[in-house]
Amino acid sequence: MMLAIEQGKRGLYTTRPNPAVGCVIVQAESIVGQGFHPKAGEPHAEVFALKEAGTRAVGATAYVTLEPCSHTGRTPPCALALIAADVKRVVIAGLDPNPQVAGRGVRLLEEAGIDVTIGVLTQQAEALNRGFLKAMRTQMPYVRLKIATSLDGRTAMATGESKWITGPAAREDVQKLRARSGAIITGSETVIADNPQLNVRSTQLGVHSDQVPTPIVVVLDRRRRLAHDLQSDYQLCRRPETLYWHEDNLMALLKNLVSEHQCYEVLVEAGASVAGSFLAQQLVDELIVYQAPCLLGAQARPMVNFNPLSLAQQLRFDIDNYEQIGADLKLTLLPL
Amino acid sequence: MMLAIEQGKRGLYTTRPNPAVGCVIVQAESIVGQGFHPKAGEPHAEVFALKEAGTRAVGATAYVTLEPCSHTGRTPPCALALIAADVKRVVIAGLDPNPQVAGRGVRLLEEAGIDVTIGVLTQQAEALNRGFLKAMRTQMPYVRLKIATSLDGRTAMATGESKWITGPAAREDVQKLRARSGAIITGSETVIADNPQLNVRSTQLGVHSDQVPTPIVVVLDRRRRLAHDLQSDYQLCRRPETLYWHEDNLMALLKNLVSEHQCYEVLVEAGASVAGSFLAQQLVDELIVYQAPCLLGAQARPMVNFNPLSLAQQLRFDIDNYEQIGADLKLTLLPL
Repeated sequence: MMLAIEQGKRGLYTTRPNPAVGCVIVQAESIVGQGFHPKAGEPHAEVFALKEAGTRAVGATAYVTLEPCSHTGRTPPCALALIAADVKRVVIAGLDPNPQVAGRGVRLLEEAGIDVTIGVLTQQAEALNRGFLKAMRTQMPYVRLKIATSLDGRTAMATGESKWITGPAAREDVQKLRARSGAIITGSETVIADNPQLNVRSTQLGVHSDQVPTPIVVVLDRRRRLAHDLQSDYQLCRRPETLYWHEDNLMALLKNLVSEHQCYEVLVEAGASVAGSFLAQQLVDELIVYQAPCLLGAQARPMVNFNPLSLAQQLRFDIDNYEQIGADLKLTLLPL
Repeated sequence: MMLAIEQGKRGLYTTRPNPAVGCVIVQAESIVGQGFHPKAGEPHAEVFALKEAGTRAVGATAYVTLEPCSHTGRTPPCALALIAADVKRVVIAGLDPNPQVAGRGVRLLEEAGIDVTIGVLTQQAEALNRGFLKAMRTQMPYVRLKIATSLDGRTAMATGESKWITGPAAREDVQKLRARSGAIITGSETVIADNPQLNVRSTQLGVHSDQVPTPIVVVLDRRRRLAHDLQSDYQLCRRPETLYWHEDNLMALLKNLVSEHQCYEVLVEAGASVAGSFLAQQLVDELIVYQAPCLLGAQARPMVNFNPLSLAQQLRFDIDNYEQIGADLKLTLLPL
């Protein structure tokens, strides 16, 4: 299953809005087929693995990171392909909460007499598809809030000067977050001040960035400060599809991104006010802080605009991960 | 030499103002004696190791983390003890810059026909005695600045509420910093607001805290806001010796701590203004940040009061070490 998860990771940046899935087929303790789902519209992981295995799939065990599909979408159901290939056993990391699958894939396999095991390395496999799984279960996307800051929690000098606080390796790492995201949310302030490109332009994703579906850019523009066309230097490279959100209701925006745009993982890259709103409304699933080992001083701009009155009202997190990236630290934090 | 350094570490909290030193004696690839310097006035590492080795020291190799002393202090010179024991070879991590030794120990050994090797694991051995070595070389102490802060670089709420931002494990770790320090510098503000004990009261040092020489407490009291006697609840446990510093000149204070008080490692535990002064005057050798995974908001108190005008004036650091301590992160940073 570890190998199947590694296979699944290969599709991490390209399968959106589909989940990243990997499959490994084992016959007599040898791997006879491996595959992953590369892109929506292309065959699923099981199909590639079965193709490689050929007749060696007969009587084999298939390890799949997500329940095989039971419905005909752009491709025929994978459960039927596994049955047709005459595998003996299917080991599944976790069920697919997609209402079009949701246990039906397993039922099809079992009805065909295949031995099915569910729940192997479930957590590791689910980490591939946090957004897809959350959206299928709750109709809300998985929200990452990314902030680049100094040691003393400052994101820019009082003058607004902020290029650059973190180093090139940390900025490159942000490309991975963008490449996983169906939408990038920013504020009108950020667009007016920095006019960031907010596109995916990395050479270190393991896939060419042309293969990565361009995330929608959402500009929070409650006060309608921005025309529906940004200035021309924003139109560099491929111009991302841009959605202007004029309402105050962030929860409604997030629901809309799932229901109307199939955006299941969302990255918030904005200033202290927008960050504060998302955090205060408990809409953040994961806070990612790129922290540069520098001090910018007490006059510099704060990281998050929200104002608890006492220590009891602070926002607390669990440290999920920390690592050094170039000269900086990357902290991944989960709200408590 | 690794083992000798491990021996030396055993004296880390108790030898002040003497350096922590370890010694291992090896005869025919077997360890025949080990020792460390436990406390000023007690025998040095070499003496303990030679005593354990007995006649097996004849023809043996002695590994010492610091050049053996050549002068008679409260104990006779160790170089002579090694000569008397008839060791064949002495391996030394680094020379002792103490003007009373400074190569004379090596000369004594070589004149007695002992083979001397210098410079094995020098950096690791010097890490035991940063303060002693710096003070002997420059007459300035090694200054650690410790700050406990939130993710967004805040040390207290606007009201001053700050108990506690970091968890018990981080606060316990601070005891180790105190136990290594000859002096703890704080500000009058901090004493008035928090009246901290600033003594060593840990049970996790590997030695009883009674064995640890109590650090001098230095109160920066430029405006003479504090009487020379603090209020009675400051006199808990053993009351540390307290020095009130009324001048503005921090450099003079640090020199004074070396020349008058033999304080070679100094810990600054104070508020944002004092921290800012030490940093802006480039008097900090090591910045230690205990960072709690929480956000206290933009109104909370800043970590460091200093005010660069542009990014070019920021203070930058190298990350020397980072580790999770309880729920918090501990960052050790070296100024660039």
